[in-house]
Amino acid sequence: MAKDKKLVESITSMQEDFAQWYTDVVKKAELIDYSSVKGCMIIKPAGYALWENIQRELDRRFKETGVQNVYMPMFIPESLLNKEKDHVEGFAPEVAWVTHGGQNALQERLCVRPTSETLFCDFYKNDVQSYRDLPKVYNQWCSVVRWEKETRPFLRSREFLWQEGHTAHATAQEAQERTEQMLDVYAKFCEEVLAVPVICGQKTDKEKFAGAKATYTIEALMHDGKALQSGTSHNFGDGFAKAFGIQYTDRDNQLQYVHQTSWGLSTRIIGAIIMVHGDDSGLVLPPAIAPVQVMIVPVQQQKEGVLDKAWELCDRLKAGFRVKADDSEKSPGWKFAEQEMRGIPVRIEIGPKDIEKGQCVLVRRDTREKYETPLDEVPKKLKWLLETVQSDMLARARAHRDAHITDARNYDEFKKALEENPGFIRGMWCGEQACEDKIKEETAATSRCMPFAQEQISDTCVCCGKPARKLVFWGKAY
Amino acid sequence: MAKDKKLVESITSMQEDFAQWYTDVVKKAELIDYSSVKGCMIIKPAGYALWENIQRELDRRFKETGVQNVYMPMFIPESLLNKEKDHVEGFAPEVAWVTHGGQNALQERLCVRPTSETLFCDFYKNDVQSYRDLPKVYNQWCSVVRWEKETRPFLRSREFLWQEGHTAHATAQEAQERTEQMLDVYAKFCEEVLAVPVICGQKTDKEKFAGAKATYTIEALMHDGKALQSGTSHNFGDGFAKAFGIQYTDRDNQLQYVHQTSWGLSTRIIGAIIMVHGDDSGLVLPPAIAPVQVMIVPVQQQKEGVLDKAWELCDRLKAGFRVKADDSEKSPGWKFAEQEMRGIPVRIEIGPKDIEKGQCVLVRRDTREKYETPLDEVPKKLKWLLETVQSDMLARARAHRDAHITDARNYDEFKKALEENPGFIRGMWCGEQACEDKIKEETAATSRCMPFAQEQISDTCVCCGKPARKLVFWGKAY
Repeated sequence: MAKDKKLVESITSMQEDFAQWYTDVVKKAELIDYSSVKGCMIIKPAGYALWENIQRELDRRFKETGVQNVYMPMFIPESLLNKEKDHVEGFAPEVAWVTHGGQNALQERLCVRPTSETLFCDFYKNDVQSYRDLPKVYNQWCSVVRWEKETRPFLRSREFLWQEGHTAHATAQEAQERTEQMLDVYAKFCEEVLAVPVICGQKTDKEKFAGAKATYTIEALMHDGKALQSGTSHNFGDGFAKAFGIQYTDRDNQLQYVHQTSWGLSTRIIGAIIMVHGDDSGLVLPPAIAPVQVMIVPVQQQKEGVLDKAWELCDRLKAGFRVKADDSEKSPGWKFAEQEMRGIPVRIEIGPKDIEKGQCVLVRRDTREKYETPLDEVPKKLKWLLETVQSDMLARARAHRDAHITDARNYDEFKKALEENPGFIRGMWCGEQACEDKIKEETAATSRCMPFAQEQISDTCVCCGKPARKLVFWGKAY
Repeated sequence: MAKDKKLVESITSMQEDFAQWYTDVVKKAELIDYSSVKGCMIIKPAGYALWENIQRELDRRFKETGVQNVYMPMFIPESLLNKEKDHVEGFAPEVAWVTHGGQNALQERLCVRPTSETLFCDFYKNDVQSYRDLPKVYNQWCSVVRWEKETRPFLRSREFLWQEGHTAHATAQEAQERTEQMLDVYAKFCEEVLAVPVICGQKTDKEKFAGAKATYTIEALMHDGKALQSGTSHNFGDGFAKAFGIQYTDRDNQLQYVHQTSWGLSTRIIGAIIMVHGDDSGLVLPPAIAPVQVMIVPVQQQKEGVLDKAWELCDRLKAGFRVKADDSEKSPGWKFAEQEMRGIPVRIEIGPKDIEKGQCVLVRRDTREKYETPLDEVPKKLKWLLETVQSDMLARARAHRDAHITDARNYDEFKKALEENPGFIRGMWCGEQACEDKIKEETAATSRCMPFAQEQISDTCVCCGKPARKLVFWGKAY
């Protein structure tokens, strides 16, 4: 038992220090390790298996909407990055530059892609000729690099994995529809698969993507009351098309500029899974995304027949579930703690007494509730339990989120809410960046989004008191 | 019909210029496009879908052997790359160097990974403590960069996609077994899925991987008689472990060095698919890997009921096959040429006369043979046909390969064979690098491998006439 305690004791409690709790979980659940490359992470098997499941499910949803995958070079010549003015201003300060190939200095330096709008534009410029070539609905899964100063596992690192979709359309309307459609794919994926409820809305001009006409976002609320921007979708209008000269001939043989979008979701989302669902025993994974959904732990496994029964059960469940049996020499207590740390949604305990009674015990990770279950009813019960855990996790996350949304009608209420109930603050905004700047400087909160579901909760700006134009979700964010 | 001709005419014939034929196919089948980044390719949807299928199938086979996927940083600090002497000598001349992050010069320059042995070693050094931590059987899917001077689509480019497996074991024997096991996975994958037969064997010291104790390879023969190294598996012994200090305590509490392997297969393999199976009409894809296995082409689609019948058939086949219907406004002839160019294994023609007779026509891409098939028998017939095409393609590739293997007992026979029947030459070798060097200089052929199936076809080295030690497959290679 000494060992079991050690595993659990080594996590800092959320209450005590949320940031340290997060780091502990990430390390102890073996999702990530630090590398010798400053600011770059090693994604270990447990972490990468999560990403693989995210990829598989998201990719399937993309393809249902007609997305095709491609692969662009990882390097961007400096002259190409410079073509769109806002875009280069946004990204140039944080890119890594390749200056030498082998022994030779390059004629033109190349940056390692921080995002690939410029590469896709350069490609579409030649690939799109006629209206028959449109729309182009391309996506790539890759890694990108942004030279961040402060880094945190999954949340901010110099290299991270993501997907970036880049589309080109004949009309402005089609581009707008695709922008919203992909945001909706993200939102549904987060809720249905990750059990992470999100607020959907538009970014203010201050917070939008460098070069975008409009940026839309899904914002999730972490357990500590901070927001996490979890995926974004941008409408570029014809801004990039004009900068890069991407034109097509329409049905009337007239030259037109294309309208473009891009949208991305990254390994950052794993941070959301951790911080929305985790507890003081470690990770809690939604069954729909858990690489292992069920861990069978034999009790008194040295007794005759116990291991056989555990393996038999495991084999039987393999047809319908992602299941493993832990037959290692560790103590059951140690195995329980490990299963909890790794966030495996259900554990099945089976020992000599259970076998005598023809049963086993299902224990759900999220509430620790136990269910004594006849052996022949396990598949049915397990199916029900995993579905229940999944929907309970979403309901719990939604309740937590909703309990941490406060309406503020003036600046005093705003500051009070931030202090007393950290989370999202709904407050009206005049539309001036000066108010966003002031709020950020004085409270560290930023505008997270102007939600699609607009309401008029007061007539005046929560900051300056001038006439209100938009409802905004505000909050401190990762 | 003018348009149809244009599509086909634009491919150079294999006979006339094989290299140009290859480039034409790659472009016309829309697998790849050139980019503004010199030496880097854009993988277009048709090319990337092939890579996705390769990934899916290979990854499944990896995981069956216990492989776990991870992700390592894309950068290697110079000091880390320098740790293993042979390795750095092999790779330093061809790496891309990052020297600046944002506006600042880096304290130590970083290379973009050309391969990740050094990163995995640096990780294992801390992650492996005890025999209980072994084996580590990790793999990653990523892109790597090698600053090549001359590049060709898929075959050699500055950036390419691949998987690299990196394992650590307690014993030398286990490492050797894993090295051979993964080569066997590659060989079976190539034959069973890609219909590409390969010669398995060991590389000579001259040709082995920088830092390896032994390198094993699968070598395929292209249609022009040149060999393509299609996958390699390396046993490092404890060389890297000693350079990086990767030690574990064994069951007797003694410190031991681990034994390591690595193995990789890249997008280069797509070049093999093209050059083993393609013909003067374009690509010919093996059904097992083809993103689209069946293209339904309606004939006289403007006639009533034709399109409905085509769609109905398409819907019915979707359950068992990767099928599409081409209902675009192009002429049937154009669609036929396009389906052939893209290498889609089977096309189904269906027009008013067919519908009258309650049939359609299945046309296989590889032989162009036609099969009139009653509509209700299509699924069964199609299953048989795809399996037949797959096995015929392998048989044909094997027959071509075998017809281009010549035994040579002396240098005259060797040179004659190279000229008269370009392909693999089986010739005995004394074991001296001087002979490899001479052969390469004088004939441009290299030692491809020492096959596992060794024979003594003569007593003397094919080059110098001294006593022979090994049977070697020689050949010109990509």
